[in-house]
Amino acid sequence: MKPSLPQGTRDFGPEVVRKRQYILNTIKAVFELYGFQPLETPAMENLETLMGKYGEEGDKLIFKVLNNGLGDAKNIEKSKAAFENALQGKNDKNLTERALKYDLTIPFARYVAMNHGQLTFPFKRYQIQPVWRADRPQRGRYREFYQCDADVVGSKSLLNEVELTNIYHQAFTQLGIKNYELRINSRKILTGLAERVKAAEKFLEITIALDKFDKIGLKGVEEELRKIGLDEGDVVFITNGFLFISTHPNTNQERLRQLRVLFQKVPIALEGIDEIEYVLNHGNDNKTIVVDTTLARGLNYYTGIIFEAKAPAEVKIGSIGGGGRYDDLTGLFGVPNVPGVGISFGVDRIYDVMEDLKLFPETVEKGTKVLFFNLGDEEAKTTYRLLQEVRSAGVPAEIFHEAQKFDKQFKYAEKKNIPFIIIIGSAEVAEQTAVVKDLRSGQQQKLPFEKLKEFLFI
Amino acid sequence: MKPSLPQGTRDFGPEVVRKRQYILNTIKAVFELYGFQPLETPAMENLETLMGKYGEEGDKLIFKVLNNGLGDAKNIEKSKAAFENALQGKNDKNLTERALKYDLTIPFARYVAMNHGQLTFPFKRYQIQPVWRADRPQRGRYREFYQCDADVVGSKSLLNEVELTNIYHQAFTQLGIKNYELRINSRKILTGLAERVKAAEKFLEITIALDKFDKIGLKGVEEELRKIGLDEGDVVFITNGFLFISTHPNTNQERLRQLRVLFQKVPIALEGIDEIEYVLNHGNDNKTIVVDTTLARGLNYYTGIIFEAKAPAEVKIGSIGGGGRYDDLTGLFGVPNVPGVGISFGVDRIYDVMEDLKLFPETVEKGTKVLFFNLGDEEAKTTYRLLQEVRSAGVPAEIFHEAQKFDKQFKYAEKKNIPFIIIIGSAEVAEQTAVVKDLRSGQQQKLPFEKLKEFLFI
Repeated sequence: MKPSLPQGTRDFGPEVVRKRQYILNTIKAVFELYGFQPLETPAMENLETLMGKYGEEGDKLIFKVLNNGLGDAKNIEKSKAAFENALQGKNDKNLTERALKYDLTIPFARYVAMNHGQLTFPFKRYQIQPVWRADRPQRGRYREFYQCDADVVGSKSLLNEVELTNIYHQAFTQLGIKNYELRINSRKILTGLAERVKAAEKFLEITIALDKFDKIGLKGVEEELRKIGLDEGDVVFITNGFLFISTHPNTNQERLRQLRVLFQKVPIALEGIDEIEYVLNHGNDNKTIVVDTTLARGLNYYTGIIFEAKAPAEVKIGSIGGGGRYDDLTGLFGVPNVPGVGISFGVDRIYDVMEDLKLFPETVEKGTKVLFFNLGDEEAKTTYRLLQEVRSAGVPAEIFHEAQKFDKQFKYAEKKNIPFIIIIGSAEVAEQTAVVKDLRSGQQQKLPFEKLKEFLFI
Repeated sequence: MKPSLPQGTRDFGPEVVRKRQYILNTIKAVFELYGFQPLETPAMENLETLMGKYGEEGDKLIFKVLNNGLGDAKNIEKSKAAFENALQGKNDKNLTERALKYDLTIPFARYVAMNHGQLTFPFKRYQIQPVWRADRPQRGRYREFYQCDADVVGSKSLLNEVELTNIYHQAFTQLGIKNYELRINSRKILTGLAERVKAAEKFLEITIALDKFDKIGLKGVEEELRKIGLDEGDVVFITNGFLFISTHPNTNQERLRQLRVLFQKVPIALEGIDEIEYVLNHGNDNKTIVVDTTLARGLNYYTGIIFEAKAPAEVKIGSIGGGGRYDDLTGLFGVPNVPGVGISFGVDRIYDVMEDLKLFPETVEKGTKVLFFNLGDEEAKTTYRLLQEVRSAGVPAEIFHEAQKFDKQFKYAEKKNIPFIIIIGSAEVAEQTAVVKDLRSGQQQKLPFEKLKEFLFI
């Protein structure tokens, strides 16, 4: 049998795991610095927790887990009925009642709803875990991938939005990603826009049309808006008025001023504009923030400020994060009035950005620092003692597993990128010295045993 | 809808995540010190990768993932046929072709088989990931739990076994778990035992009987051996001869001597005894190692030395780790002759041991160190600048989200176990000072802004 991996899934070998860990640990440290606390939820959720939360298309992409014991004698009747239902496209509890989580937001809402009596609000949590989607795999799109989220729930304060913009800035800066852009808009402005074009009931459709701007451009959005049934004047208002604000270079202040002109009689939009202004005035880094009227974010649950972090233009990778404010996520689970705001980091894309721009520090890949050669059981006893001493000083070290020829042992060190080798033969045991070779420079020297730790620790 | 979790799964809140991370990071650091490299494999594997690898009982406990689009019009015929097969207890690719991984060993073997051309042997990898089993949930047994494994493949050297015993010792010691025991035995001795009682073909059944010793005791094992069909003399040889060696207090050396007497004419057993002796002589910690003839380990694939780590007797938790040598794990996937040896840490049980014995250091639970009170937008500007300075010094800090009454802000700090609060009112802004209060001691003092960082950093 020739082994293979399921489509859209990946193994991560040592080098990749280390680099991914570097990204995740950096972001995690920033979350902690801002007072966010870790949460982990199981891979499987009850199917009913997930279904109906991601739209019709989303529902189809949920991986469902088969109940065990379907073919068992005692379950035959139930299973038959379940299969009948499945053939009619209906979910049946006797076929599947669990599913793999599709994102971290709904499980978080489920957790808050289940535990709201015990939690201290505002509750600030971060969560870094894999999620699963039965999407058609393609470049940069996988069926298992990590999400990395931070959310505050139980607070309406805009200070949270300010904090989240600062988290983006600090995390990207620490990762070395300069020239990223944090796009900002408000669903309140979009709500105002729908009102302004006398199509409040078409708010979601308009949002979805705007959300396609990056892919289909201004002409495409125009087309979509016509399809929705907006009249020509309103289409022009949106494309030549509203979107124009962002498709032409300008300062954030000027864009906000133009928005105030467009929406002078639409209170909800003015509220959104004020909120954006508050965030711009309070953040410790508003140079990377860009007011962007083309930003819409497709997800239904956003109600206030929305964010999207864009990779530096030179790498052509697009979005590397996003988020926004929602009013009532836990309402879905019977606990109303828990407003919140959250952001997400796109780990896979951040990885690609960092590879493209060569931003991973060399130290990330550090594995074993020294290989002790194996010259046979007699010498190995001394070697083994020294090896343990070196390790006790915190230096990752190995002994070659067998007393093979030197060239084999050298090759092992080279392939594993181990910078130092140490050779202790019978002569060295007698002298209490070790031959130390730096494989990068080729330099070789004899050191007394007691100097070894010190030498390697540098 | 009242939200709930699938049976046998758990949410991990902030405190638990931090404690679990402490355990995993400690073990991980030891793995790295010994030259092991990280590997991650996907949650889902192809069903055929997993089926047939864990015995009939194991197969039943594998969580299978339903194919998407079963009820879609174009799939109806295939789905019907698949359902027919399922009702007869047969797997069908049109119903399910993926499953959640059941352990880390088989996915590792699959990885090695797929990548053996690129890997440097001996290949030393560690892997810390969740696995899933449809076991009936009970105290201490979950349907999703973490495994934490280290394996070396591509080497027959006993130095690997020595290294693994040292890893156990160093990891448990660093976690503060003293008085653990590392039980050691060899499947070669058990093979010799089966030969010695003229039942070589019943090796596995005998092993399974011995494996139950902890649960059913000596009498129970006797019963099982009779059921297998061993004659009375052989049953007595096993219980009163072989097992007696370990059920009575004695030194390892004496136990090995007694084993040599029992197996003087059984070469395979003598080989096993020699190997154990080698490990005892070469490990840097053989005080915690106990030669244990009752140790069998049920898994088919072990062929040499086997380990089991037992929790300190006072906590009554039993096994907290185990492993052993296998000859040919990747043979299952068409790549023969890759011998290896591995160990596993039982993370959930180690967690319980550490809770019972209060071994988690206080620093593990450290979250936010200081809460800045929010006294309104005007003061908040100064506060926010100082907050960012404190964070830039690496001190986790928060500002309360709204200018609420002091008692509410105090309560938040208390509930979140934040040790320091800082109050900056308009008087303080004018003076450039901050009121700092230590909530543990109740002590309060005024500090100039420039002293804040220094004070909090201690």
